[in-house]
Amino acid sequence: MVPIEGLPEVQAGDDLAGLILEACGSVYPLRPDDVVVVSQKVVSKAEGRLVQVDPDDPMSHKPLVISEATRVLRRRGDLIITETRHGYVCANSGIDRSNVAADIAALLPVDPDRSARRLRDAITHRTGSRVAVIVADTFGRPWRRGVTDIALGCAGIRPVLDLRGTPDASGRVLHVTEVCIVDELAGAAELVRGKSAGVPVAVIRGVDPSWFGPGSVTGDVVRSYDDDLFR
Amino acid sequence: MVPIEGLPEVQAGDDLAGLILEACGSVYPLRPDDVVVVSQKVVSKAEGRLVQVDPDDPMSHKPLVISEATRVLRRRGDLIITETRHGYVCANSGIDRSNVAADIAALLPVDPDRSARRLRDAITHRTGSRVAVIVADTFGRPWRRGVTDIALGCAGIRPVLDLRGTPDASGRVLHVTEVCIVDELAGAAELVRGKSAGVPVAVIRGVDPSWFGPGSVTGDVVRSYDDDLFR
Repeated sequence: MVPIEGLPEVQAGDDLAGLILEACGSVYPLRPDDVVVVSQKVVSKAEGRLVQVDPDDPMSHKPLVISEATRVLRRRGDLIITETRHGYVCANSGIDRSNVAADIAALLPVDPDRSARRLRDAITHRTGSRVAVIVADTFGRPWRRGVTDIALGCAGIRPVLDLRGTPDASGRVLHVTEVCIVDELAGAAELVRGKSAGVPVAVIRGVDPSWFGPGSVTGDVVRSYDDDLFR
Repeated sequence: MVPIEGLPEVQAGDDLAGLILEACGSVYPLRPDDVVVVSQKVVSKAEGRLVQVDPDDPMSHKPLVISEATRVLRRRGDLIITETRHGYVCANSGIDRSNVAADIAALLPVDPDRSARRLRDAITHRTGSRVAVIVADTFGRPWRRGVTDIALGCAGIRPVLDLRGTPDASGRVLHVTEVCIVDELAGAAELVRGKSAGVPVAVIRGVDPSWFGPGSVTGDVVRSYDDDLFR
């Protein structure tokens, strides 16, 4: 796992794939079967998902939280836990004001799986290397303190895999264990991205090539309202 | 991240630290600041947290699920989501019957943080290398499909770190971002452990030495009932 440093400040309309490839450069050229993990924030910036807010009012983005949500699940003080249009359950509909100008709030990409697909297609096309892309964001969880990075969107990698669905050492056939590898990969990447003071891109090399394949986070990971026991 | 293969079938009373060191052997001798991630299942086995159940009745461990729980939060069909005595929220109080004999159910360790401390103390004492230990288990989550590995217990590593609590690129002071690094490390280790057909130990090398320090999962990560918005 390698953090990719040297990405410039990303602006709306920027060619993010090009910037990533430039930052990888000759230091860490992408190879086939690399997984490129990109932070939601730079994707939102490149896609222009930025809204002007009152820089002097720390609550001025709250109306956006509601307009980006399909359901408000919980409120406590300033904290609003919502279900977004994509189906993610997170704080403030994923909107935040860090790493943007004081008068800007960054919204989540409209379709993070599509964002991942576009990045993957552009990188694969320009390098000739088949890569997978994960768009990662930082979410809290119920039950446990602290945040972890999870996958908002992905392309080129199967999000949920049965890593252990074989008879176990006792010859007993295991219950199927469907592991959400894209969330584990996003969290792993955060460890090297965060370490390097918020570097927005990391490359994970050496994953099993059999993990590459079709799938999306909204299709394969996001639980529907009716399937969920805690909403 | 390296999976440690060659661990024998662990029995109650086994010296797990010794078995891990033997399996690392000369192939991957532990170094200072390595993080050793160990699956809950082998810890439970070594600690004798095994209960006899009717091998012909797939539901015969269900009374244990209730006796190990302080609260039953949800039920759906055979699935019972409980809060355990430790405060974890998980399926079946963390009890499972995979990778054990057909007439055995494995319970969670009584105190996984203490289990981690014992392993860490034994490994550090015998090798002279300061290591951290994480006891990892596989939990489902609300909102998202698929399971991921999380930390049940830890020793020698600070569980929750402020990786990004510095002014951001815009000079704006960020909200504190408390990252649960032990969960991200457990998930990362799962990617190499699961890949190698359920290897119970992995070593993560190269983490920032500043991450080493005191703390526990039950003290720093587990949210109390009253602090939680979704119980």
